[in-house]
Amino acid sequence: MSIVLGPNQYGKAETRLVRIYRDTERHEIRDLSVSTALRGDFDAAHVAGDQAKVLPTDSQKNTCFAYAKEKGVGEIEDYALALARHFTEEIATVTRAHVSVDEYRWERAVVGGTGHPHTFVRAGHEIRTTAVTANADRSAWVISGIKDLVVLKSTGSQFTGFLQDRYTTLAEATDRVLATSLTARWRYASAGTPAGPPEGGWAAAFGHVRQILIERFAEVRSLALQQTLWEMGSAVLAARDDIGEIRLTAPNKHHFLVDLAPFGLDNPGEVFHADDRPYGLIQCAVQRDDAPSTGPAWESPASFA
Amino acid sequence: MSIVLGPNQYGKAETRLVRIYRDTERHEIRDLSVSTALRGDFDAAHVAGDQAKVLPTDSQKNTCFAYAKEKGVGEIEDYALALARHFTEEIATVTRAHVSVDEYRWERAVVGGTGHPHTFVRAGHEIRTTAVTANADRSAWVISGIKDLVVLKSTGSQFTGFLQDRYTTLAEATDRVLATSLTARWRYASAGTPAGPPEGGWAAAFGHVRQILIERFAEVRSLALQQTLWEMGSAVLAARDDIGEIRLTAPNKHHFLVDLAPFGLDNPGEVFHADDRPYGLIQCAVQRDDAPSTGPAWESPASFA
Amino acid sequence: MSIVLGPNQYGKAETRLVRIYRDTERHEIRDLSVSTALRGDFDAAHVAGDQAKVLPTDSQKNTCFAYAKEKGVGEIEDYALALARHFTEEIATVTRAHVSVDEYRWERAVVGGTGHPHTFVRAGHEIRTTAVTANADRSAWVISGIKDLVVLKSTGSQFTGFLQDRYTTLAEATDRVLATSLTARWRYASAGTPAGPPEGGWAAAFGHVRQILIERFAEVRSLALQQTLWEMGSAVLAARDDIGEIRLTAPNKHHFLVDLAPFGLDNPGEVFHADDRPYGLIQCAVQRDDAPSTGPAWESPASFA
Amino acid sequence: MSIVLGPNQYGKAETRLVRIYRDTERHEIRDLSVSTALRGDFDAAHVAGDQAKVLPTDSQKNTCFAYAKEKGVGEIEDYALALARHFTEEIATVTRAHVSVDEYRWERAVVGGTGHPHTFVRAGHEIRTTAVTANADRSAWVISGIKDLVVLKSTGSQFTGFLQDRYTTLAEATDRVLATSLTARWRYASAGTPAGPPEGGWAAAFGHVRQILIERFAEVRSLALQQTLWEMGSAVLAARDDIGEIRLTAPNKHHFLVDLAPFGLDNPGEVFHADDRPYGLIQCAVQRDDAPSTGPAWESPASFA
Repeated sequence: MSIVLGPNQYGKAETRLVRIYRDTERHEIRDLSVSTALRGDFDAAHVAGDQAKVLPTDSQKNTCFAYAKEKGVGEIEDYALALARHFTEEIATVTRAHVSVDEYRWERAVVGGTGHPHTFVRAGHEIRTTAVTANADRSAWVISGIKDLVVLKSTGSQFTGFLQDRYTTLAEATDRVLATSLTARWRYASAGTPAGPPEGGWAAAFGHVRQILIERFAEVRSLALQQTLWEMGSAVLAARDDIGEIRLTAPNKHHFLVDLAPFGLDNPGEVFHADDRPYGLIQCAVQRDDAPSTGPAWESPASFA
Repeated sequence: MSIVLGPNQYGKAETRLVRIYRDTERHEIRDLSVSTALRGDFDAAHVAGDQAKVLPTDSQKNTCFAYAKEKGVGEIEDYALALARHFTEEIATVTRAHVSVDEYRWERAVVGGTGHPHTFVRAGHEIRTTAVTANADRSAWVISGIKDLVVLKSTGSQFTGFLQDRYTTLAEATDRVLATSLTARWRYASAGTPAGPPEGGWAAAFGHVRQILIERFAEVRSLALQQTLWEMGSAVLAARDDIGEIRLTAPNKHHFLVDLAPFGLDNPGEVFHADDRPYGLIQCAVQRDDAPSTGPAWESPASFA
Repeated sequence: MSIVLGPNQYGKAETRLVRIYRDTERHEIRDLSVSTALRGDFDAAHVAGDQAKVLPTDSQKNTCFAYAKEKGVGEIEDYALALARHFTEEIATVTRAHVSVDEYRWERAVVGGTGHPHTFVRAGHEIRTTAVTANADRSAWVISGIKDLVVLKSTGSQFTGFLQDRYTTLAEATDRVLATSLTARWRYASAGTPAGPPEGGWAAAFGHVRQILIERFAEVRSLALQQTLWEMGSAVLAARDDIGEIRLTAPNKHHFLVDLAPFGLDNPGEVFHADDRPYGLIQCAVQRDDAPSTGPAWESPASFA
Repeated sequence: MSIVLGPNQYGKAETRLVRIYRDTERHEIRDLSVSTALRGDFDAAHVAGDQAKVLPTDSQKNTCFAYAKEKGVGEIEDYALALARHFTEEIATVTRAHVSVDEYRWERAVVGGTGHPHTFVRAGHEIRTTAVTANADRSAWVISGIKDLVVLKSTGSQFTGFLQDRYTTLAEATDRVLATSLTARWRYASAGTPAGPPEGGWAAAFGHVRQILIERFAEVRSLALQQTLWEMGSAVLAARDDIGEIRLTAPNKHHFLVDLAPFGLDNPGEVFHADDRPYGLIQCAVQRDDAPSTGPAWESPASFA
């Protein structure tokens, strides 16, 4: 029995890159956090301290910046694919590259009733994400997503008929506030060799999925957050053949009804305490039965260890 | 010479309160963080440990919740005034009450092209604020504000002609990205005895000030963040007689142009690194020369110690 | 082809539990954040909204609190094992329970030169962790760990001889500051059926591993963070037969030498800028060649999606 | 009536500076966050956009780094005084400089039972602070402090006999957990013209004050957090003639006793839920009656607006 190196990866995390398009007077902005993670022939770097096969994380950062100029940052999926393929194709020792990108939204400042050509206001709470995995055999996966999408419904949610054990004190709720900060990630089935954008493009697909998620959250009467997530996820798959799987993570942001009776007041679903911790955490994947989840595509620096 | 108790205050900070208006099928939501701080006759509580004059912070929290039902949460300024006056008028030992409120914005979820009656999406990065001070003599100040308003202009900003000492290495910039996360707080002159809302109401005044701030940020060619803040603040005072003073705090969120020359690329204001720390921090007040700043009105738990 | 429910789990995250032992005048304290995640027969909860098999997350939280009294919180591994086994053995619909615990360190306040019986000062930056997985077949894994262990060496680190591509501008460093905020997680080989503590107990094993990690970080001349991690991880496995695998995640907290030449000053490794982002992120597993990594044991809510 | 510029200041915030002393094989480390804020003749910079009198914040940052070499970072108070005086004495347009420094603690790694010469482990939760104000007339104040000092006592605390109003539901507590994350700031009376260190030096004074604060927290039976703070603060002033005032800010980190009765368990002060928000926030100053608080000394970027 001997001690051996197991799975390993390395890269540059959270490079904060802003790309301005200023070809016309009406500028455009892309605001990104980019993380790279490479796998490959790095045993000697660990075991012998020999760095001859190791591309510095500083060079990876430089590449992120240079590619923002060379390839541009049209859609984050294309940008991440270009970066990931660069690493697997140009760096001989890299067998797999994982590039994840968070995109922060900006809106044009409205001045005199119209969008300003070069002034922007940071918009929205939510972040558009992508995570691309490219392999030396030229296969690739694209997972796109959204995170920090905070949604709340003030009625149309219940939680009843649950299992009770000796530690259960929760009362059934027939009308409660349901709120979550949704993280959703979906894998494009079209990705592969080559991985290309869905029909209509990445941005349109993102907007479409986001809209479906919000509409189902709004319209489905919630019997539990699990059921709501299922309805949201399965609606996405039903609407888009080009998505093979979606994973949803939803903290149950508890809104507790405040007892106002000691003050002679009733509280018919009007005044709530929004609690921080602990919180329910509900997670599920919705898949197609002929397209099982492909493990590597879901890997990320956060999930590694 | 003896040791004495100096200024002191106490209260309940960051009560997270959500108020749902559900009188019709079209619900409304108010999402707040409320902090209270009381001053008064509390020497014995400190020096002798006698709590007979101390209203527990738990009771203050209860009052925040109860008032959300009793008085409602129409505008945060009215709600904060009601709370502050309750403490000074109903609790004999309180001589001054400070109530600050952060309001988080929500938008209706758009479903089938129209706003949903009871589903909301957390909107925007920015937070609307108020800080109300009420005194036992019935005088009151209202300071309203905005924070975390992140704005960026991709041109129309320079920084030249500055003082140079032996530690100066900064090059002059004739065209740079200017970005900040603005905190603005303005004191309503109309507040006093009694402190009432500005003409058109608190919300309209808030929207008006916000719009002026953004428009001036967009339209003024920036010679420095100091000058931009002055132009923003003085425009607010010029437009609204009912505001006596405005204070602005603006971190200079540096966007450094990346040197792409080593890669054979030029970078004419296109690719930037958005740095975290350190950051410039520019702060100023804009006042009327006949209405000097009133110290107490600006006090907050954060500024106390 | 149809749409199906994929992997799913749910639980209560970040229950902040403090347990005081006060059987004698010399109190003891345990300060924990506990998260539970259950897997099992929950298809109907998702697809049909039928909660009959779902133990509420509120009940899970209650169990965390009740077990702190019933079973106590001696070592976090024992407490987590007891909780996890409770869920798989007592709740018929649960097939796998994952319980993770963070423990915050406190030291006795030193008063008059001696440890105070009931006053404590929060100690240290680092957090002791465990993540236990129990299955309905009574098998179990125990992964213990440490996170936020911030270490720095001011010499004895170099980075030279690395691969260079067209985006490489980094200079070789023959003497640099090496700093990281280490996360380490190790799987006890002794865990299984039944999973019992290592010889000497969980706390002693934790202290032993922590000491080996720090000593190797200090004593190995670093040729790269990869090699340092390998040396740290393999030393742990060499010293303890009862650990089957260790995973290390190490952000390279860059300390950049400041160029003081413009001010007529040299800077021979004395003044550094500690940068926030981006950062290198190095991750590896060290294993035994006859004990391959067992996937499920490493799962956590963070890694799920 | 006209619109005028009010109080204003600007500087560079949160420069993260690490200074290594490597004159012998046994290295020393100082790890700082430095913020500067200048006041002076900056009207033209605001009103006319004329930067001729404005020292760039970038130059201020450079000075922080250069002074770490030129003057060294022995004690943060001396370093901050040197910086502040540099700005008021060397930059003609500056009338007041405010320099605040946070110092992060490191301990030597213990290797083979002894402190390692060049490897350090980040220690403690708490941060040592200083805030120095220097004026062009050569007067200066030094405020030193501590923040994030988290302390807890598991008995010896009660809260009874408090004022009750119609919103009071809190039960009296005769034995509760008392915990806080203390911020303390004390003004050295010795500071002035010139401001010199207290007898024994800044570090010894810091250690002395910290020890008094902890001992009083431990030994005083708490009748309320207000009384505990008073006892802590007045003990500091009683013990040290060279301190003119101390300000204490203490969030009451509530530990709520969990009701275990539904599970057939008693809970005599053993199992608590450590809640996040809301929290009580208690603040007071303890002064000498012949040395009233000097306003400017307490100013900080955080308190400005």
